[in-house]
Amino acid sequence: MRGGWLLLLLVGFSAGCVAATPDEVVDRAPASDWMTVPARDLLVMEVRGGARVVIRLAPDFAPAHVRNIAILARRGWWDGGAVVRSQDGYVVQWAPRDEKAVKPRGYVATLPPEYERGVSGLRVTSLGSADSYADRAGFVEGWPVGMSGDGRVWLAHCRGMVGVARDMPPDTGDGQELYAVTGEAPRQLDRNMAVVGEVVSGMGVLTGLPHGTGRLGFYVRPEERDPIVRVVLASDLPEGERPRVAVMRTESGSFAAYLHARAKRTDPFFVRPAGGVALCNAPVPVRVE
Amino acid sequence: MRGGWLLLLLVGFSAGCVAATPDEVVDRAPASDWMTVPARDLLVMEVRGGARVVIRLAPDFAPAHVRNIAILARRGWWDGGAVVRSQDGYVVQWAPRDEKAVKPRGYVATLPPEYERGVSGLRVTSLGSADSYADRAGFVEGWPVGMSGDGRVWLAHCRGMVGVARDMPPDTGDGQELYAVTGEAPRQLDRNMAVVGEVVSGMGVLTGLPHGTGRLGFYVRPEERDPIVRVVLASDLPEGERPRVAVMRTESGSFAAYLHARAKRTDPFFVRPAGGVALCNAPVPVRVE
Repeated sequence: MRGGWLLLLLVGFSAGCVAATPDEVVDRAPASDWMTVPARDLLVMEVRGGARVVIRLAPDFAPAHVRNIAILARRGWWDGGAVVRSQDGYVVQWAPRDEKAVKPRGYVATLPPEYERGVSGLRVTSLGSADSYADRAGFVEGWPVGMSGDGRVWLAHCRGMVGVARDMPPDTGDGQELYAVTGEAPRQLDRNMAVVGEVVSGMGVLTGLPHGTGRLGFYVRPEERDPIVRVVLASDLPEGERPRVAVMRTESGSFAAYLHARAKRTDPFFVRPAGGVALCNAPVPVRVE
Repeated sequence: MRGGWLLLLLVGFSAGCVAATPDEVVDRAPASDWMTVPARDLLVMEVRGGARVVIRLAPDFAPAHVRNIAILARRGWWDGGAVVRSQDGYVVQWAPRDEKAVKPRGYVATLPPEYERGVSGLRVTSLGSADSYADRAGFVEGWPVGMSGDGRVWLAHCRGMVGVARDMPPDTGDGQELYAVTGEAPRQLDRNMAVVGEVVSGMGVLTGLPHGTGRLGFYVRPEERDPIVRVVLASDLPEGERPRVAVMRTESGSFAAYLHARAKRTDPFFVRPAGGVALCNAPVPVRVE
């Protein structure tokens, strides 16, 4: 935690006596252990000053919600909108300029819950550590998930995950207002909200915003809100402006080694490895260009 | 997550059909279920603009480290110091103006690890949910803890916990540089660092600082650092300026009800309670005046 140990670390390596750290596992992972995210599954949000937030969408888990979001993005729905809420240690939330405006063709006002799905057809990697919120925790196609004994699987509310704000059930939200988790994983929301993706780049842009002073961290005055310049699908950007995102394959050998290294830290800084790791403390490695 | 449900919540209560939420349990907790933190165990940090961060110290867990910190605070050791690091989603760290200056009498340069202690004599409340990092997780005297099968107990690196920065083992840090956890609980640090307390007020002051752009979130240029006006023990402040801090007794009936409500959310917003809760997602309720 202080920084003067880099030299010792290097000495340790050169002596060949130090097992791989999580960062080293990531650095050494071969190309075959990464999957490229299609540009149509990337949402690019530009805020004040041109700063970019890139979100990987999860059509495998919330297809109807993601379809709405893509339809709205293609219409420029959030352009001129704003971040409306920043609750310290919880979420940042954003909204379009006018939620009541006439919607584009294809938009659906009332959506199915999409809070969970069947596990069949998915490649599951088990976390191998106990979980407080699910029978089993693990990873599926690059996502952190909870799983039940009866074969259901759902995206977990880890830091960076993006969900659909809603009012009360049976309302499930229509995708116009989205939130990103910024604090300690609020896993109590799992299976209670539609999770539609994950921030893969630009989290610091969101967590760097001033906290709202109103109830639940909403901004009180409109001028406190941080304006959204535009939200667009990467596939609608010119080739040269598209972010390129690769996610480590969670069924790969590199990811198994990464999980092992997270649970059994052998960097010389550690005197006592934990032996386990929490689902949301083992973020799936992502490369963004 | 959207906010329009307050009315429904009230209707639900008046009909007597809604179990208590965590907030309600806290609001209803009788005075006997709270303990007052002695002023000598409160560290008050004042930063730019007079904003205050209040830290509850943990002499039961790290007595030698806490003693050093108290000795340094009484000497005004951090006055004119600075926050030197803000790593998004991890920690904020601060330091005195001159670590090499002549230390006051009583200060000890080399301290015992104090990473864990025996559980005997402590009142333990079990979390009741699985934990990824310890044989058992729970609470002791208002602190979140991990516990081993052989009777050891240690403070857990939950959001808000304060620890002592160090270089490599066997160095354990002397308490001059402290950090507060700001992101997803880095429990891999448990039993690897001396945890000396918890931020009980003013977390937003720390998380609201700009993120450092250097390696590990350190500020690159001195002028980026946020200056510390002073750090003082509350017991050294005039009576009228002392913060008053009460922590819910973790062995109380109110705390058991709070834990139950966190694990089995019955607020009308929830369609599916998790049934469990993670240690660091059940922050011990604190009242600060």
